[in-house]
Amino acid sequence: MSEKLDQIYDQLKELHREVNLLVSISALVEWDQRCFMPSGGSDHRAEQTSWLAGKIHKKSTKNKIGELLSELEAAGIGKGLDPRDVNVREWRHDFDLRTKLPQEFVEDLSRTTSLAQDAWVGARKNNDFGAFQPWLEKIVALKRREADYLGWKNEPYDALLDEYEPGAKTEEVAAVLGGLRDQLVPLLKAIKDSPRKPRLDILHRDYPEAAQEAFSKRVAAAIGFDFNRGRLDVTAHPFCTTIGPNDIRITTRFIRDHVNAAFFGVMHEAGHGLYEQNVLAEHKYTPMGEAVSLGIHESQSRMWENSVGRSLAFWQYWYPEAQKAFTALKDVSVEDFTFAVNAVEPSFIRVEADETTYNLHILLRFELERALLKGDLQAKDVPAAWNEKFKAYFGLDVPDNANGCLQDIHWSAGLIGYFPTYSLGNLNAAQFFVKATEDLGDLEAMFAKGQFAPLLGWLRTNVHSHGRRYRSADLTKVVTGKPLDSKPLVDYLKKKAEMWYGVKG
Amino acid sequence: MSEKLDQIYDQLKELHREVNLLVSISALVEWDQRCFMPSGGSDHRAEQTSWLAGKIHKKSTKNKIGELLSELEAAGIGKGLDPRDVNVREWRHDFDLRTKLPQEFVEDLSRTTSLAQDAWVGARKNNDFGAFQPWLEKIVALKRREADYLGWKNEPYDALLDEYEPGAKTEEVAAVLGGLRDQLVPLLKAIKDSPRKPRLDILHRDYPEAAQEAFSKRVAAAIGFDFNRGRLDVTAHPFCTTIGPNDIRITTRFIRDHVNAAFFGVMHEAGHGLYEQNVLAEHKYTPMGEAVSLGIHESQSRMWENSVGRSLAFWQYWYPEAQKAFTALKDVSVEDFTFAVNAVEPSFIRVEADETTYNLHILLRFELERALLKGDLQAKDVPAAWNEKFKAYFGLDVPDNANGCLQDIHWSAGLIGYFPTYSLGNLNAAQFFVKATEDLGDLEAMFAKGQFAPLLGWLRTNVHSHGRRYRSADLTKVVTGKPLDSKPLVDYLKKKAEMWYGVKG
Repeated sequence: MSEKLDQIYDQLKELHREVNLLVSISALVEWDQRCFMPSGGSDHRAEQTSWLAGKIHKKSTKNKIGELLSELEAAGIGKGLDPRDVNVREWRHDFDLRTKLPQEFVEDLSRTTSLAQDAWVGARKNNDFGAFQPWLEKIVALKRREADYLGWKNEPYDALLDEYEPGAKTEEVAAVLGGLRDQLVPLLKAIKDSPRKPRLDILHRDYPEAAQEAFSKRVAAAIGFDFNRGRLDVTAHPFCTTIGPNDIRITTRFIRDHVNAAFFGVMHEAGHGLYEQNVLAEHKYTPMGEAVSLGIHESQSRMWENSVGRSLAFWQYWYPEAQKAFTALKDVSVEDFTFAVNAVEPSFIRVEADETTYNLHILLRFELERALLKGDLQAKDVPAAWNEKFKAYFGLDVPDNANGCLQDIHWSAGLIGYFPTYSLGNLNAAQFFVKATEDLGDLEAMFAKGQFAPLLGWLRTNVHSHGRRYRSADLTKVVTGKPLDSKPLVDYLKKKAEMWYGVKG
Repeated sequence: MSEKLDQIYDQLKELHREVNLLVSISALVEWDQRCFMPSGGSDHRAEQTSWLAGKIHKKSTKNKIGELLSELEAAGIGKGLDPRDVNVREWRHDFDLRTKLPQEFVEDLSRTTSLAQDAWVGARKNNDFGAFQPWLEKIVALKRREADYLGWKNEPYDALLDEYEPGAKTEEVAAVLGGLRDQLVPLLKAIKDSPRKPRLDILHRDYPEAAQEAFSKRVAAAIGFDFNRGRLDVTAHPFCTTIGPNDIRITTRFIRDHVNAAFFGVMHEAGHGLYEQNVLAEHKYTPMGEAVSLGIHESQSRMWENSVGRSLAFWQYWYPEAQKAFTALKDVSVEDFTFAVNAVEPSFIRVEADETTYNLHILLRFELERALLKGDLQAKDVPAAWNEKFKAYFGLDVPDNANGCLQDIHWSAGLIGYFPTYSLGNLNAAQFFVKATEDLGDLEAMFAKGQFAPLLGWLRTNVHSHGRRYRSADLTKVVTGKPLDSKPLVDYLKKKAEMWYGVKG
């Protein structure tokens, strides 16, 4: 590139450096709100987050950015796959997305979701949908406006989905999820009919919180999460956030008589954290140093949570330590424990759902929010619709809204269009794992010896270090040589069903 | 006021609202750095704080603010004592102070002190002055430049002192502290010669951290600190910070075999917190809703820590609870315990110093930083100078720099000119307490019954609710009817010396 183009590129980097600094400050402010802020701080916090959101929007939508990008694009930059091309292409993508939203709208949405999250915490605690309903109405209306600002062809939901998973289409996601459901329903039926049952009581004994925290931190460190560059804290609804390139924070909630909730929650969030800790520092503040999409992010968290954390090999290594940490496990065999954490059984809470039913939880939410956006469903009717669908998919009566439509933070945070990315994550995790095994050999044999570095290294090379070089569908093809397919996930779940339940899928 | 003047005033309020929002975000970022940030986050955090400091400086020094203030001042506003006058007067004071510092300088100082604080943490831990010395040199050079920007007549230190205690003069502070020293030296001599000695071992038994935390939180709540509008966390060097009008955070550090350090630390920070929680919400974002000065702030913390927390009456109420919380106290009488927490004895660490020697710690620091600013002392010579003065004032040989010149965070944070405000706090605390007793009757009799609301109510009315209506010297006169005087503090210390050591001052 000529010197002039170099200067323009550097100007763009500097403009985005400032935006990213503000985003990182905003991440800290939100982390604090969810982990530590006293209740009285709520109103002022809404003013802080609203100011930050407005400032981020303003700085990331400066005309200057569009002008500078146009100059580079006119010189043919932004079409290839080297870092400079990728950054220009992705800056353009983000700029176009953001400039469609007026600043006033962004501030309104930020203020509303900040207050709605506090309302949700109370509503969930008191099992009081009525206290949350007006906020859900406001948020759906705002998100419908957002879809209109962004533009859509088939249905408004397309525009929202595209924000989290660029390029994905509602119809296609509906087809994949529907297809997955068609393959999993007979499998679930066979599992239900199997005489073999896990000893679930094992998981609901007395597991002191402090021991849970010490053990899960130790495992997170062992799989590669760097606590000199991160933290683990307690919150109501676990998440992972990036405060800075060397400050990645994960969260969990410890439940004394429910050991698997926090442990696999930590494995999950550590999976997200490993992605953030292993993008390339040299690309700090640019798309080449960022994660591809929520779906790819979720592929990392689900892989560490499930493909690694729920494997018998993993527990063959860690179980003696777990038995030392928890007297509750003294008389339990590693097989009984691992079967219990691989139990397949319809349940109410998504974050505690097993791998086989998980995607049905997603399908339910996806269908409801799609209908809310279309206007086919009203906020006030969400509990009834939720409970009806739940009965149809899971065969269970939802006991209360805290175990139903109030369980997730997402809608209160304005995250509509986000849920499908979880299923895209599961599908990619399975497909990546098959390829990693082809490349590295028997991964489970490594887990059984406490060796997790080979898998992390493979992920760093094949996924993390690419940053946003490839869009998610392309990354799947580049890494595995094939387009995204439900077969690896279905094969994986069938193998587990055979192993634990003696069921042939 | 006319409608036009009303509009100008509202414009100023809005401009300051934004500045104060940024200040509150910056406070959160710094709180996190000192309580929770992983070590890896340091470099990025310096970028965040530097950006925020620069933005705050830019927004609080806009020409527009000066112009709008001039218009109000031309109409005679800013001379009286009603809220509008006070706000205009104090906005002008702050604006003039800030516009003297170039933005580039402010950013440089912020970046340097952010990194210096991390260096200080390591230097203190490793007792390695050499690791901190280059940072101290940089900071002294920057603060001397700051004094030059701000302007001074007699000596550069005047300019820095004025930032924390508007209107105070170095010469006058030196005289008061010198005078206090002249009165306390014979008292200390008499105490040293007394045959009565406290049982200090009582304080160094086994006090589990969790019990310390629970007990000190309970007491903080009982004296009026509202935990729905605040928090208590753990840090290396305790502080109090305001994240929002209803989010005031205090910090402490728990030492298992040193129970008084954390307990009185919490009382101290809670005293600061009570001030911040009790300024008037209606004056949010304006000087009328802010604390007067560091000296007046310290009068609140020292009053709750010492006049309240170290009184026998206070422990007559709380001691049975303390005995329940700590088995270490089972065989200890309330008199022996209270004598121990009122022990007078030269010691190395300022924050653990007794009330009688405390001001000598301040005098030492004040003299050193005054000399650093004048150029009479070089950073490299600080340890030797510190140790020499310490020997002269306390009769003790400093064992290492961690117990000497590396003990305080202040210099690493650029807080030069700050130390004298601690002594101004002690003097004001004693003088306010005498007046509160005149107004309310026997306060100690109330403490013995667990009644702390009358004192807090008196402070709210006479100190907190004024905001910055009066400068500190004027507030002392308005509240007590007299100028600041060393007699109340000396009388108070003599009374304690007689009570515990049987000494007539």
